[in-house]
This record gives sequence, structure tokens and C-alpha cells, in this order.
Amino acid sequence: MIKKYPPSRSRVRPAPDQKKESAPSPRRVFRAGEQTHKTTRSPLSKHLPAKHTQDLSKSGKLRFVPVGGLEEIGLNMMFFEYQNEIVVIDAGLMFPVEETPGIDFIIPNVSYLEAKKANVHALIITHGHYDHIGAIPYVMDKLGNPPIYTTSITKAIIEKRQEDFPNRAKMNIITVKNGDKIKLSNHFEAEFFGIAHTIPESTAINLKTPVGNVVNLGDFKIEYDVDGTPLDVETMTRIGKDGVLMFTVESTNADRQGKSESERTVEKNLEELIGSAEGRIIVAMFASVLTRIGEVIKIAEKLGRIVALSGYSMKANVEIAKRLGFIKCEPGTIIPVEEIHKYKDNKILILSTGAQGESNASLRKIINGEHRFIRIKPGDTVMFSASVIPGNELSVQNLKDNLARQGALIFASDIIDIHASGHAPKEDLKLAMKLLNPKFLAPIHGYFYKRSVNAKSGVEVGIPRKNIFLLDNGQVAEITKDTFEITKEEIPASYVMVDGLGVGDVEEVVLRDRKALANEGMVVIILALEKKTSRLIKSPDIISRGFIYIKENQEVLEEVRKKVRSIISRLPNYQPLEPDYLKTLIRDQVGQFLYTKTKRRPMILPVVIEV
Amino acid sequence: MIKKYPPSRSRVRPAPDQKKESAPSPRRVFRAGEQTHKTTRSPLSKHLPAKHTQDLSKSGKLRFVPVGGLEEIGLNMMFFEYQNEIVVIDAGLMFPVEETPGIDFIIPNVSYLEAKKANVHALIITHGHYDHIGAIPYVMDKLGNPPIYTTSITKAIIEKRQEDFPNRAKMNIITVKNGDKIKLSNHFEAEFFGIAHTIPESTAINLKTPVGNVVNLGDFKIEYDVDGTPLDVETMTRIGKDGVLMFTVESTNADRQGKSESERTVEKNLEELIGSAEGRIIVAMFASVLTRIGEVIKIAEKLGRIVALSGYSMKANVEIAKRLGFIKCEPGTIIPVEEIHKYKDNKILILSTGAQGESNASLRKIINGEHRFIRIKPGDTVMFSASVIPGNELSVQNLKDNLARQGALIFASDIIDIHASGHAPKEDLKLAMKLLNPKFLAPIHGYFYKRSVNAKSGVEVGIPRKNIFLLDNGQVAEITKDTFEITKEEIPASYVMVDGLGVGDVEEVVLRDRKALANEGMVVIILALEKKTSRLIKSPDIISRGFIYIKENQEVLEEVRKKVRSIISRLPNYQPLEPDYLKTLIRDQVGQFLYTKTKRRPMILPVVIEV
Repeated sequence: MIKKYPPSRSRVRPAPDQKKESAPSPRRVFRAGEQTHKTTRSPLSKHLPAKHTQDLSKSGKLRFVPVGGLEEIGLNMMFFEYQNEIVVIDAGLMFPVEETPGIDFIIPNVSYLEAKKANVHALIITHGHYDHIGAIPYVMDKLGNPPIYTTSITKAIIEKRQEDFPNRAKMNIITVKNGDKIKLSNHFEAEFFGIAHTIPESTAINLKTPVGNVVNLGDFKIEYDVDGTPLDVETMTRIGKDGVLMFTVESTNADRQGKSESERTVEKNLEELIGSAEGRIIVAMFASVLTRIGEVIKIAEKLGRIVALSGYSMKANVEIAKRLGFIKCEPGTIIPVEEIHKYKDNKILILSTGAQGESNASLRKIINGEHRFIRIKPGDTVMFSASVIPGNELSVQNLKDNLARQGALIFASDIIDIHASGHAPKEDLKLAMKLLNPKFLAPIHGYFYKRSVNAKSGVEVGIPRKNIFLLDNGQVAEITKDTFEITKEEIPASYVMVDGLGVGDVEEVVLRDRKALANEGMVVIILALEKKTSRLIKSPDIISRGFIYIKENQEVLEEVRKKVRSIISRLPNYQPLEPDYLKTLIRDQVGQFLYTKTKRRPMILPVVIEV
Repeated sequence: MIKKYPPSRSRVRPAPDQKKESAPSPRRVFRAGEQTHKTTRSPLSKHLPAKHTQDLSKSGKLRFVPVGGLEEIGLNMMFFEYQNEIVVIDAGLMFPVEETPGIDFIIPNVSYLEAKKANVHALIITHGHYDHIGAIPYVMDKLGNPPIYTTSITKAIIEKRQEDFPNRAKMNIITVKNGDKIKLSNHFEAEFFGIAHTIPESTAINLKTPVGNVVNLGDFKIEYDVDGTPLDVETMTRIGKDGVLMFTVESTNADRQGKSESERTVEKNLEELIGSAEGRIIVAMFASVLTRIGEVIKIAEKLGRIVALSGYSMKANVEIAKRLGFIKCEPGTIIPVEEIHKYKDNKILILSTGAQGESNASLRKIINGEHRFIRIKPGDTVMFSASVIPGNELSVQNLKDNLARQGALIFASDIIDIHASGHAPKEDLKLAMKLLNPKFLAPIHGYFYKRSVNAKSGVEVGIPRKNIFLLDNGQVAEITKDTFEITKEEIPASYVMVDGLGVGDVEEVVLRDRKALANEGMVVIILALEKKTSRLIKSPDIISRGFIYIKENQEVLEEVRKKVRSIISRLPNYQPLEPDYLKTLIRDQVGQFLYTKTKRRPMILPVVIEV
């Protein structure tokens, strides 16, 4: 069962006079400085499953639908549909945000695809990051378990994750190499080609469709050498010359000026810092940034340090990358972390997860003294080779404080370039647009603002405004070799939340309660009443959590009891008790009383028991 | 009544072998790369009120105590004590963090000062920002309502705020001008001098004490002209030549490289953007950044735009600044916001609060169509003249998305320099240290890591390591003209939380419950039992909030009821019921059952009613 949490745009409430304008206007053409307004959906509205009565079997149009990732960072999934054939690209998850407390993560809503699973011929995965692969275990069945096309290391990462889901159907993963051209179905053929990102074998796709070629670079950056010369432009140039109908371009860093920092500069800085450190070195980073992990291991080997891996995903990913030859090192370079005591401090480099201050990750354990083999000691050098994800600033600050208190020397990417983003900023996005020279441009991956900036970049490189399209999740575009139209059809695209074992059973109302409870706490008032007389059998029981500390605020409690008694005493005794009416009275009057008394609005939960 | 929430350092848990080391070691001298470890306090431990048995009346030592602001950003308060005289500097608040959900703000713990209120001779306020004045309404009584010394605009801002607290004692605020020298008590004299920050009349203090001069610059930046020449160095040079015993230096941006951006550059960029905009302009910023607000009004007037103010605090602050002559403009430049319809779009500039995406601020209302007089329309230019405070990234992203959807052109400080921080970064901090040339350096304002970087900057300008001290909130330093010692004494310095009308009644346990409720929700299970037989009188009532949506998960509910019945049926009937025992059984077994079933751990609250 799929439950829906409408994405952020539902919070947009256009001004009344704008509503009129926007309602009839087709929401399809991006005009710089003049985007059309979004119509509003109530946060509680649920998309009805689309009715698939439309007969596409004779349609000459390519349908393009972004399912997720266009109103958020993460949750990437889109598909292409031509007659009775569907090709899906990526199946990512998104981590919880402030609006979704307590949940584990969010996955795309695949109910449209589920209804058409017989038509799904392929799931193409661009690279092995969770915002592109994380939903696979949850959606494969619903997609009808189609073949997955991806590169070898991505395949290995997907299979490793699948070990956590032993009951799922066996997947058919077809390994592709960059350069491969593969027929996916009657109407679709994919050419895979390499692109620079932060994990090896990221693949871009030139999808050949009956109406023309659609290029998706996935997540990418343009890689430069230390002197600032771009390295990654050849294949794109060639593909551009072959002709591109549409380019679906990522927008994660579209609002960032300039060009990508060179990973070579990062490598150079890391080598200098590692070379000049006197004690042990801990490099904290994401286990998913496998390209740089490989670089650090190479540098350590060159400078005569052994490498210990700390953190489950760090070990798992390096193991995969080594097995497949993406990380090459001498036997003995990587040692088990339990053996670091055998080496001198200036011979040790520890690669650790937890650069965001995550509470269960290795770096936090090391700092808290909970790691079995590693403690911080004065003279240690700790490098944060990562950017801070918004929302994690205080956790990272806390890490740094604790490290500084324990005498570690700290380097972070705000002090020296020891991290480079894997996502192209404005000038690199423009370079890619120029090289591919598409007829139509569809900015994907990222919030509306980022995509609108990306759209402007498109105009700056000469793509006509009328050929640039800002879709939202769930919107359906129909494309021919000459036309691009965003239809009125929308497929279900609301959030599906995963919480523990539950998929889709946490809904808007549950999240709203969680937020209310977090802010004001709650008070349960239990009334045991005699059925016949509606008299209280015993003094009301009151439980509160997250409101005020009841033990030290007995007088408030007593006043609430008094209030409740007085409400009950005023109940008419010539008619039977209506528990719901009594509950409403108590909720309102005790709520008001507590607000007057404390200026807080805890959730009031009255329970009436008649015996 | 003062309740305590231990600040972040209690989260530091040194490794076991380090605990032993750190316990006896004096925690006082900062040695670069070799700071001493913090001893641990349990998050639930409460500081006992310090016993004030010590007779200081003959002491020849100056006592320096930071009450707040050394383990956080905000909450600034410190005091100096000599014999029976105390001078307090600043009384700021701190806004809630992730660890303190639902509370309004945090104020410093003044229980030490309360016990000695007869000795408090002065409260000096450096400038009118809430992290320096926000606690005044809550602490003045406890401090014995001492005279407040501050500049005219700060006085007006404090008095404006006090209007919200009509029942407080009348304050005695003594207006000082920069340049004034004022005798505060027998032993303390203060020289006030001007410093650049983002609000007019920020004042620095040269506090003359019996052991020497202590300089506190408050929050400051070095202001540069557009060509990069520093402007603010004369007085500091003179004071440095007079001799400085201790410099308490802020550390907010101590870990940021380089020098302050020039406010003149910001002004120049704003003027260019405003000059080239074709439609209406909305400049979103903090109402507290009064210096820049004045600049924007000046630019608008120069370029022939009227200015409308939107947001309560924007109006209040501009009103104060105009009245006192810090903002000068022609009559008619500032118009009531309800009259903007009388002007052409290209003649309108709106100054609005809400650049952080705050839900009740003016900009959010404008965007949501809830503002009475302003709606966004295509062609509007919106400038965010502010940095994004960590934690607000998604709110600001949401603002930008909605603005872009409604057709506004957006400029933010990540694209063009239209904001400059009011806090000195590394090179400016070093400049101030060099000019003041203090014997002792005490970095204040900011997390340990930031202060430790500031300490290193001190070493870089030639202050001996042994003369630089990193205190924590509540630590007591004793200073003579030759020595500086951090004593073993600690005064109460744990957080006091303000929530609604309650001051100090939200404690650790309440916050822990709020966090638990936010993450997993709760389930209340109500059992009505017959006293004699311990039999259930009726089916157990179950209420859940924030867990799963019960209406659609009736089968889970039914299983919980079954579980509860089975627990009760297995109770021994040869002895009277022990409700607490039954509650524990239910909490454990239902908790375990739900975890197995859902992999979630809602708070289980059993209620047993015997009738």
C-alpha cells in the first residue's frame, strides 16, 4: 500500500489574484524571470492513482516522467515511455528532513510503474550512490524485476546492499562497460559512456529513442587538471555532433558560480598535509567517495604509511573497489584496524567514516572513546575531506570541539581545499550544454530554484527559452522530434516513507503529531466514570511527557484535576454521558487553561473509561 | 528556581585511559596541539549552587568568570569580581538548537550572581543584539537591578523590548558615549570606545581594574574601505600603548581565513543591483543589522525609490534609529507599506525581515500570499542581504523555490557580495591582538574549536602560549598583574531554558522525552482492572500518536490488545496486583512486540486503573 506525503511545493500558496492567472495557463514553458505559477495542493491531498486508460500503443510520442529528484536533493528516478515500452533511470532514496522526523528515508512513488510493470524493460543505474540506488530493494518487485543495466562496481554495490534484504527476488543485473551500446527493447537503445564523478565507473547514457537521442549524464563534474585544463570533453563533443534531442541535466550545484575544483588539487593538498603530519592521521570522509579513497590510499603508500579502515561501509566499499581493481595497492598497505598498535604513529593513516558527525559512525565512536582500537591522542591530525551537508553543522562543530579538546590538529575543507564537490557548478554545466547542444533542455536533480538557475544557464549558451522545461515530480512530458509538451496528466509522485519495517505507513498526520509532540509534549488525562451517574470513580490520572517536569510542578497537576472535576460536575445529569463531547470539553478547557498558565500548547489526550 | 541543562561539553566522553590523566591535571594552560582534556559530566548531573563561603574582601586578585557564550554561539555573559564588587558584561540569549526542541530560547544561569546581587555594581551592554541583551528582562531582578551602562541606541532597543515585560522593575540605564570614562565602583572604571559591527554605537570597553586594564571589544569586525585599507585601528593602537593586561577576544569567525569583507563593497554592490533593477525590489535582511539598513535607505533615496518597511522588528528598529539620528532621510522616503500601490514598481524598495525563512516573518508571508499589502509578481527582484544561519538552509531554499516559481529574480550573498559578516575573521583578530598587545589572552564567544584556533592566532602574533587561556562557561580565573590562574572553582553555568511563561521548568528529562516522541511517537495503553480479581473490566484502550496511523493499522492494535490480555492472564492471582510491576511488564513486552513487528520503539505508556 502506497501512502503519500506531498513534496515541498504543496507549501507554496500563490496569492489569490495569481491563482486565477495560473489556473488556466499551461505550466510548461520556462520564460526567464517569468516562470508560471504552481497551482496549490493541500498538504493532506492525496494523488489518486492515475487511470491508465490511455492507449499509448499507437502513440508516436516519447513520454518523459521524472518520478523524484526534481523538488529535492536525492530520490532520483525518472522514466521514458514509448508505446508499450518503459525504460527507468535510477532508483534513489532521500534522507529525512526536518519535515519528516524519525523516519529512516523516503523512496519514490512507483505506483504508476507498478500498474504497468509488464512494460518496464530496463532499469538503468548511473552510479552506486544511495540517491541513485537506495530504493532498489523496495521497488524492484513493483517494477516487475526488470533487468538492471549498470557498470561493474555499481553492480557490486547494489548486490552488497541487497544482502540486507534476503527475501527479495533474485535480480538480473547486466554489466555494461562505458562504450557499450545495448538494445533495451524494440524502441530503446542505450549507449553508455564515462563521466567524472566521485565514484568509479559513473556512467552517462545516450538513450536512442524513436524520436531522437536523449542524453542523461547522471551526477557529474568536469574534471580539470591542476593547471585548470578540462579533461572530460571528448565523448560529449562526439555525442553532441551526433545530435541530441533532449539533455536531462543535473542541477545540484547549478546555483554555484564558476567551475569544478580540480580533484588533482585536492590530491595535491592531501599529499602535502599527509607528508608534513608528524603523528597519526585520520582522514574522515564519506565511504561513497570511492575515487578519493583510492587517492588517499595511493598517497599513504607513497609516503610510507599503512592504511587502516574504520567504519562498516568504508571496509565494504574498499573491499569491492579492490576486488574489481579500482583500488590498487601492495599487499600489506591496508591492515586490520586492530593491528594499528604495531605501527609507529607516523606510519599510520586511518580512513574513517563519520565526517558529518553521524552518531553511529566510526569517527564519533573514536572521539567518544567507544571505538575498540582507536582513541584520539594529542598530536593526531584529523582531516575532514568532505563538505558539511546542511543540517549537520552543529554535529560537525561538536566533533571539532571534542577533537580540539583532546589535542588533535584539525584540517577541514573551509581552511584548505581537501574536498571537491562531485557536482558541476554553473560554468561546467554550461560547458556540457554547449558540447551536447541539445534541442530541448530539462534540468533535473534539485530544487526548483536551482533548476531555474540552470535553465538560465541554458539560455546563456544559446538554447531558446521555449525549448527549456522545468517539470515537477510526476509531470508527464510528451516529446516528438520537433515538439515538447508538458501535458496536464500527472502520475502519483508523493513521498513514500520508510520507517523501520514499514514502507508507506507513516503519513502526514503521523508526522504532524511527531512535530507537535517534539515542540510541546503531551498530557494524557484519564477519567474513570461510573456509567450510570457519570461521576468520577477516582481522581483523574494525568500523565505528561515532554511538557513540564511533573514531579516538580505538582501544583499545575492539581489545578488540572480541579478543572476536570469542575467540567464533569457541570455535565447535565438528565441525559446519558457522551464521551466524545466530554473529551472535547476537556481538550478545549484544559488546553486553554494550560496555555494561560504556561503559554504552551501540549497535545491533550483525554481518555474516558465508563465502568 | 533554576534548572540546569548541561551544555554541549557534557557530551564529550573522553576515552577511559584519558579520564585518569585528565582528572588530576589542571585544566588551565592552553598548549597548542596539546590542549588538556575535559573532565566529563553526566548529562543529568546538576551543578550544585556554589557555596559562597569564600571571603574575597581582602583578596588582591581579579576574578574573571564567563557565565555563557564560551561553549556556544550566543548566550553571552561574563563578569569581573574584585573583593566585594562585581561588574557584569552583556546578558544575551541563545536560540534553541536541535538538542532543545520546542523551547523558546536559553538564558545564562545567574545563580552565583543572584546570591551576590548586593555586590553587582554594573551591567555593561556592548550592543543591542539579542545575543547580548536578550536575557535582560529575565535576569535584572536576580542581579539586583544594577545600573546598565550602554550607548543611546542600545538603551532604546533594550527599553523597547522591556515593553513586553510590563511588570518588571524600572531599569536604571545610564547612557554612555564612546570616549566616556566612567567610575563604576570603588575598584572598577570603564572607558568606552567605538568599534565596527553591524549595528550603530557598538561599544568596546577598556575596564580599568586594580590589577590592570581588561579590554573587551564585544562583537567586532575591522572595517576596510573599498580599496582594502583598514579604518578602525586608531583607538586600539592608543589603548594598546597604555598597556593591556587581558584581552577577551571574540571567536565567532576565528576559524575563517582572511580579513573582513568591506561593508563598502557590499554597499557598492547593493547600489549597482538596485540601480539596474527594473521592477520592485525587496531586500530581505535581519532587522538587527541596522547599519546596513541605513545604507540601503540611503541608496534608495539616491536612486529615487521610496522605502516601505515590512516586519514588526524592522519598523521598530528603523523608528529607533531614525529618532536617534542614526538613519537620516528626507520626509517621504519611508512610506507606510499600505501605500506602495500609489507608486510605480520601479520606484519601490521594500525592506523586509525573514531572510532566514522564519515562518512568521514578513518575507514568508509575502511569498505565501498572506501579507496584507505585498504579493510577489514576475519582475520583482529579491535580494537576500544576509548569510544563512546553519540549520536554516532548507527554509531558505524553500523561500527561493517559491520566489522562483512566482517569477522573482533572486540575488543572494553566495552569488554576489551583498552581505558581510559583522565578526572578525582570523587576520583581523590577529590585527586586534597585535594592536592591543595584551599580556593575557582569553578567547571568548564561540565553541571550543573556534576558540582554540583563536588561541593559535594569539601565538602567531607573539603572545606566549602560557599566557593564553581557554576557559569554559562557569570556570573561575583569578588574575593578578603577573599571573593568571584557572581555579578549581566552578560556578553554576548550565542552561536555563525559557519556554512560554516557564523559565527553567524544561529540563533534560523533558527534552529527552520530546526527542523520543519526535522520532518514534508514543502508545498509551489503558487498563481498567477489577481491584479484587485483577481482571480486565473492559477491552484495553489504546491511543497512539506519531507512531503509525492507527486507523489504517487496526490489526497491529488488535495484536497489542491480545498481548496485553495474555500478560494479564498470566499474572499470579494469589497475591494483590502490583500496578508498577504490571506496567513494567507491559512496557517491556509490548515494546518488544512492536519492535519486532515494526522495528520502531515508540514510547509505551501503560495506565492501570483499578476499580
